[in-house]
Amino acid sequence: MTSSTTGKLLGVGTGPGDPELVTLKAVKALQEADVVAFFCKKGSKGNARAIVDAHIRPEIIEMPLVYPVTVETQKDEPDYLRSIAEFFDRSAAKISHHLDEGRTVAVLSEGDPLFYGSYMHLHVRLASRYATQVVAGVTAMSGCWSMAGLPLVQGDDVLSILPGTLPEEALTSRLLDTHGAVIMKVGRNLPKIRRALQAAGKLQGALYVERGTMASGSAQPLETRDESPAPYFSIVLVPGWNTRP
Amino acid sequence: MTSSTTGKLLGVGTGPGDPELVTLKAVKALQEADVVAFFCKKGSKGNARAIVDAHIRPEIIEMPLVYPVTVETQKDEPDYLRSIAEFFDRSAAKISHHLDEGRTVAVLSEGDPLFYGSYMHLHVRLASRYATQVVAGVTAMSGCWSMAGLPLVQGDDVLSILPGTLPEEALTSRLLDTHGAVIMKVGRNLPKIRRALQAAGKLQGALYVERGTMASGSAQPLETRDESPAPYFSIVLVPGWNTRP
Repeated sequence: MTSSTTGKLLGVGTGPGDPELVTLKAVKALQEADVVAFFCKKGSKGNARAIVDAHIRPEIIEMPLVYPVTVETQKDEPDYLRSIAEFFDRSAAKISHHLDEGRTVAVLSEGDPLFYGSYMHLHVRLASRYATQVVAGVTAMSGCWSMAGLPLVQGDDVLSILPGTLPEEALTSRLLDTHGAVIMKVGRNLPKIRRALQAAGKLQGALYVERGTMASGSAQPLETRDESPAPYFSIVLVPGWNTRP
Repeated sequence: MTSSTTGKLLGVGTGPGDPELVTLKAVKALQEADVVAFFCKKGSKGNARAIVDAHIRPEIIEMPLVYPVTVETQKDEPDYLRSIAEFFDRSAAKISHHLDEGRTVAVLSEGDPLFYGSYMHLHVRLASRYATQVVAGVTAMSGCWSMAGLPLVQGDDVLSILPGTLPEEALTSRLLDTHGAVIMKVGRNLPKIRRALQAAGKLQGALYVERGTMASGSAQPLETRDESPAPYFSIVLVPGWNTRP
């Protein structure tokens, strides 16, 4: 086996959910690929695979990479970290087998592959050994503020992308010290996020978005959202644009 | 004239430069549009219009919106602000005329329309009066880190998007207090950005990217980039991903 006979690794961003927000380059990558790999939970195809359904050729080899664990709360525990690292090792080895046989493998990634995406774990394990191309995608946050028609940042604005898992004081001080913000991983952190925005004087104007660019997506002012638990992947958008020529 | 006879405003993200990073939805928007509007400098079509060249129907009405000023340095002066505000007012009025006549107008925006894009100035002037749809696009920063194959942020990382125009001390303290960073508007600020990254202990690993996803694009470690002036739209990427399961 020489490098000239091995296949190519493609990290393919599928965009945030709307099948029309897939790029022409992603469609082309799926036409070229011999194998399509995608992360999913047991019993589900996963969002990324569903988004590109119209572009999957019948003869392509499908490779679901099924997450070994589903509970997000245990993610700092050594058992979880070992289990997930072994999962990424196994997944990389499976893909590597196809690449060694000369097959081109497209790994799907919801949103953009190198921006908070699981694909990154395969990229760092494989990109140094195989020809690799990353196809950028529309991020979930772009999908959300576009659906809502909310101008986010302009000119010399600072934008902070923050996990809702931050402690309340950290969240508050970071919100005080930025123009625009995107708060991800809202879920059970919603009441804390609301308090932090209130303390930073930025609750008014903040927008809560659920299932961004899915058909079932919705957006509303955070002020009017009740305190019932939010889906894990809902986000809060804080527009930063104050001066308008 | 009633609202049922007026046209639709489409804010269309063209992605960062590579014509294949245009979405299917953007292509569809251009098929539906009667008019295509785009910002440009005198004597140039502008990047956004060039990116979608393959999708422009011969019968479409082309509306270049030519910036009245080209010098970026005077942007805080009252004369500049008045001149640019009048330009956006005039541009919105021209678009409004077509919308009133029932024509659908696609306004192109390089990257993503509501993320540091000029389209935002038209959106705030028109979206409350006309049916409006924003088509999200791949951002310039996604195009850059994908071209470079640089995993940027993961898990609970904080990402800060910073203008290179910030004072050196502000830039340094923000770089100290974040995981990943994207520094935009590099241009003449390159030596200052380098010093700030050095002071924050993040020069190693920082990547300098010029003309992101254009055919002529290139990336190199910032440490090896000389001190000659950088193009205004070059960016610096600081990866934040430290822990890898």
